[in-house]
Amino acid sequence: MSLSSEKSDIELDEKIKQQHRIDSLNILLYMLLLITTVLTIWMFKHRRMRYLHETGLALIFGLVVGALIRYTGDPSAITHVEVQAVPHSDYNESLPPDYLWFRMKRKMPPGEGSGPVENRTYAYLLTGEVEDATGNEFAQQATFDPEIFFNIVLPPIIFNAGYSLKRKFFFRNLGSILCFAFIGTTISAFAIGGVQYTFGLLFSSPPSLLDCLYFGALISATDPVTILAIFNDLQVDVNLYALVFGESVLNDAVAIVLVTAIENYAKLYATGSDGFEAIAFLKAIGLFFYVFFSSFLLGSVMGCATALLTKFTHIRDFPLLESSLFLLMSYSSFLMAEAADLTGIVAVLFCGICQAHYTYNNLSDEARVRTKDFFEMINFLAENFIFSYIGVSLFTFPKHQWDFAFISCAFVSLFIGRLLNVYPLSWLLNLKRRPVIPLNFQHMMFLSGLRGAIAFALAIRNTYSVGRQTILTATSIIVAVTVIYGGLTTQLLLWLGIPVGGEEDDETTGLNQLQRCRPRGQQNETGARDNPEKALLVRLWSDFDTSFMKPLLTHSRPTLLETMPLCCHPLARLLTSTQQLTQDTSNKYEEDGELCLEADEASFQHGDNGSVHSSGHQMAAVSDDGDLGTGSTAGYQRTPAPPVSTRVHLQGHGRGDSL
Amino acid sequence: MSLSSEKSDIELDEKIKQQHRIDSLNILLYMLLLITTVLTIWMFKHRRMRYLHETGLALIFGLVVGALIRYTGDPSAITHVEVQAVPHSDYNESLPPDYLWFRMKRKMPPGEGSGPVENRTYAYLLTGEVEDATGNEFAQQATFDPEIFFNIVLPPIIFNAGYSLKRKFFFRNLGSILCFAFIGTTISAFAIGGVQYTFGLLFSSPPSLLDCLYFGALISATDPVTILAIFNDLQVDVNLYALVFGESVLNDAVAIVLVTAIENYAKLYATGSDGFEAIAFLKAIGLFFYVFFSSFLLGSVMGCATALLTKFTHIRDFPLLESSLFLLMSYSSFLMAEAADLTGIVAVLFCGICQAHYTYNNLSDEARVRTKDFFEMINFLAENFIFSYIGVSLFTFPKHQWDFAFISCAFVSLFIGRLLNVYPLSWLLNLKRRPVIPLNFQHMMFLSGLRGAIAFALAIRNTYSVGRQTILTATSIIVAVTVIYGGLTTQLLLWLGIPVGGEEDDETTGLNQLQRCRPRGQQNETGARDNPEKALLVRLWSDFDTSFMKPLLTHSRPTLLETMPLCCHPLARLLTSTQQLTQDTSNKYEEDGELCLEADEASFQHGDNGSVHSSGHQMAAVSDDGDLGTGSTAGYQRTPAPPVSTRVHLQGHGRGDSL
Repeated sequence: MSLSSEKSDIELDEKIKQQHRIDSLNILLYMLLLITTVLTIWMFKHRRMRYLHETGLALIFGLVVGALIRYTGDPSAITHVEVQAVPHSDYNESLPPDYLWFRMKRKMPPGEGSGPVENRTYAYLLTGEVEDATGNEFAQQATFDPEIFFNIVLPPIIFNAGYSLKRKFFFRNLGSILCFAFIGTTISAFAIGGVQYTFGLLFSSPPSLLDCLYFGALISATDPVTILAIFNDLQVDVNLYALVFGESVLNDAVAIVLVTAIENYAKLYATGSDGFEAIAFLKAIGLFFYVFFSSFLLGSVMGCATALLTKFTHIRDFPLLESSLFLLMSYSSFLMAEAADLTGIVAVLFCGICQAHYTYNNLSDEARVRTKDFFEMINFLAENFIFSYIGVSLFTFPKHQWDFAFISCAFVSLFIGRLLNVYPLSWLLNLKRRPVIPLNFQHMMFLSGLRGAIAFALAIRNTYSVGRQTILTATSIIVAVTVIYGGLTTQLLLWLGIPVGGEEDDETTGLNQLQRCRPRGQQNETGARDNPEKALLVRLWSDFDTSFMKPLLTHSRPTLLETMPLCCHPLARLLTSTQQLTQDTSNKYEEDGELCLEADEASFQHGDNGSVHSSGHQMAAVSDDGDLGTGSTAGYQRTPAPPVSTRVHLQGHGRGDSL
Repeated sequence: MSLSSEKSDIELDEKIKQQHRIDSLNILLYMLLLITTVLTIWMFKHRRMRYLHETGLALIFGLVVGALIRYTGDPSAITHVEVQAVPHSDYNESLPPDYLWFRMKRKMPPGEGSGPVENRTYAYLLTGEVEDATGNEFAQQATFDPEIFFNIVLPPIIFNAGYSLKRKFFFRNLGSILCFAFIGTTISAFAIGGVQYTFGLLFSSPPSLLDCLYFGALISATDPVTILAIFNDLQVDVNLYALVFGESVLNDAVAIVLVTAIENYAKLYATGSDGFEAIAFLKAIGLFFYVFFSSFLLGSVMGCATALLTKFTHIRDFPLLESSLFLLMSYSSFLMAEAADLTGIVAVLFCGICQAHYTYNNLSDEARVRTKDFFEMINFLAENFIFSYIGVSLFTFPKHQWDFAFISCAFVSLFIGRLLNVYPLSWLLNLKRRPVIPLNFQHMMFLSGLRGAIAFALAIRNTYSVGRQTILTATSIIVAVTVIYGGLTTQLLLWLGIPVGGEEDDETTGLNQLQRCRPRGQQNETGARDNPEKALLVRLWSDFDTSFMKPLLTHSRPTLLETMPLCCHPLARLLTSTQQLTQDTSNKYEEDGELCLEADEASFQHGDNGSVHSSGHQMAAVSDDGDLGTGSTAGYQRTPAPPVSTRVHLQGHGRGDSL
């Protein structure tokens, strides 16, 4: 190897080190942003300031830093060269290739021209389309590969939502939640898409209908983070909490499947000949349900598989292995769904719910604390990272397309979409639902439709075409505006007369509120009994769950030996663990009766079981009996999370009425 | 937008989705590998099989899967096009540009030729050099960006090594450890580099001296994981444990700084004119110490800053915020060092030691458990991920260069390097050191020089040139062979007569062993007192630490008010927290006296403090008083980690002698 070639190796090393330095600086930037956010959050909490939520803080700090980078950075460090295929190239497809191989002559430094001229070939990877090949050379500073958001940052957020779901109230309001999530999100997506498209026609370069629908679907994923944190702080009514949380958890899943369905429709439409629109449409609907339910099934199966693994092995003797297995299985559910062309978000959400409902019972005490703490922390960091990133990237992401008409219109269409979602569906639901959703709850639901991490992650996932870049920019702006506005919620809650803040008298406020707000005088009864068919469905599932699923998947009593018919006893014996047979029946697991609406109130007050938690975890144990947590961002406060008392009250109230 | 353009957008979408699917499959592959590894580890532990360590398992599974992918995969899915600069390009540097802009004509599908021909420009990012531009088209399957290893996977492993360091025994053997780490690693690096270069000269295309030294430095980073796990299982002598662990922790740091120094030397040498070698050499040595101590300082300062933040704010009221801050500050120390052209590994290692020594005392009980569990789990997953990856990538990484002469020679030079490191230095140290390092300990140290994650991460960091690709291949092979061979250690320990396995009688075995094995009859005394100057240095630091550092950085007693001269009292009052003044002196923190060799034995048996841990964490508490853990991979077993009893014994023994 000649000296000069060694010299260029050293130069190349330098270049790589330079790149590494920039990478480190980028990550460091976000770490410092997060540190600032954490410290500011602490100060806000310490001084009881509530007018801005932590995600809003992360976003604002991000905006400031992004602007600094934008206007002080030196974009000239990044070089590019325009290239074309070599003349005799036989590449003949309409799509850009994955890699380019760039052969370049090494120019010798002056005075050393004696060595041979070396040809070296370098590989280059496709990153995206360049819109304006003359300008727009701003460096790709402080940005990450979008796949990182989708594959790394998003799954723990969604999983934690499922793992810390308040299952009792979720299932009690299941009908309404499903209605809002499925029908509401679809209404919202098409309303937004339609308005955007109609409005776009007024201009010279309208966005395509496909892009508009795509935008409508992804922006329909509401984000509960800000609202729920405030709900937690202010102890709002549990049913409102369940509705808002349940809707936003499920509507992420629905929105993402809608996005896929719209893409599929476009594909079917484009490849089929004209006149087959209807068939393409039906196929797309079929695909929607196929994708949703397959993902649901995959996630649930992975959750149940983890439950079986933890039940029938003694892996609980090694909590580290146990927790790792738990984490790996859960993450695999996401990846499997993505690899199988389903949606990982749906899979990991239902996997989280199954893990909480079954596997959690089989875990050792240490692994319970470990997994809960782990996901809580990862969730907290991931969320704040996304919001910091949204802030920074608004200034630094090189592929923004500032279409102000589109953005302004988006706010209007968002408003319309939310309007057509909440009020008509609430009216429909109130025809049958008891307790009805009072009007001020509807207002609150309307206003709590903030947009956040999911919408952004969906938008940044694909920015190869200009249309998608416009969508990303609009989404970023919408998220920024709604999240910062989210801080006003406290005022709105007060203004709408939704019960907040009471500690002890809350037990009556909630009840009074429900009765006072009821707009239709003729309904005097509350509780699940009013709605026999829905209660029946839930009770059927609950019975099946208690008799077969829990005995099969956990160490809980009764065992399958008691619930299965006599002929199946050999099988039942095989599926019953020794621990299950020998354990003291008084030592029942915490989660028992979670789905059973008539469960004894004591299941909420597992002080005896809660005490297996550390004294250091006492406050977690207080907020945890029955549920694993009190929402995605609660639980890092040392005082017991508020909804507990309200919850206990409401249940008592419901039963009192129905007896 | 024309229909055909919309159609190609859809095609592009499909392509992106395809890429995403492949990404998901790649990650899923590793998750499944890890799940298999976790379950197999559990089975091995359950059946008490010890002939293969978990990292060896991960590696073997990786190899199998890698081979499957290699010989069943379809590489044709990835397309590439050879390109050249457009004729009038003015790019004139000797290095490849960061981006290529590729302008291509969209070919219309047949039958739709009426639309305008569109030009689109795509950006491509540099990924590396292609050696053989005609063949070697094997797809970049199942591989990751090397930066991920260096920036994401490695830091938690190193941090955890520092955070769970047995500080007492580390500091007791500090002199020897530093000697092995600094002098030994340097000897090893130059010996290996020299042998490789000399051997290479026999062949037609010898590797460059720079590459040889680079290889020598990076392969000198020994990996303690396998050995220490076995040591933990078998309860070996604590001094041997401290020597092996301490050396391998520090020598990673030294090796990585050596790598930087060699790069710097090459750069200085290449840019200076001839005849200035000596100056370049001196400069490189200066840079070595500058980089090492600046990184050390940066890491320690970040650790102390975290201690101050946790001491003087009430952030401990919110354990989630507290743990997040802890994590973010620690990771920032790594990134800051990397961004400042220092070495993050050194920074994060010493940051970990400071966090354990100071910050840990200020944390809330919940945050202590949280951070310990968190890092333990991340460390476990990161390690096994790296070993899986090494296995898979041996078959799938597209840039391997199989230079069999180089690889065979590497094993010989490794042997020579380790030989010249352990035995001469032990002999030198034994001239002054008490207790001496007996010959069978030296054999064990010689044999425990396995290579692992650090060496691999260093090697894969830069594979742009062919020389570096050869180094990567050799490193992978060496790591694979030594890690799998590591399982034989149990047999070696028995064969060398190193005490293993005793539960109760271990207390005497350790002592007998030390006396029996002493090869030089004239030394009859043990304990630190024999070595007054070293003991003095350690005692000086210990006094300073107890009088100033701990009172300043933690809530421990005595306070600065008691230890600082009277004139400084206003300042001392400012730096003393209320909690520090008001707390009950009996409620001392666990870590007190950690560095103080004469500390009361009771400091090892903080059963009273240990009880603030959860009952679920009881076994952690048992193994934890005094230290945060029992090594990088211990602590996921429910039985108390073994070294505790030995440790307590040895301390008693040492003091008994010196009284």
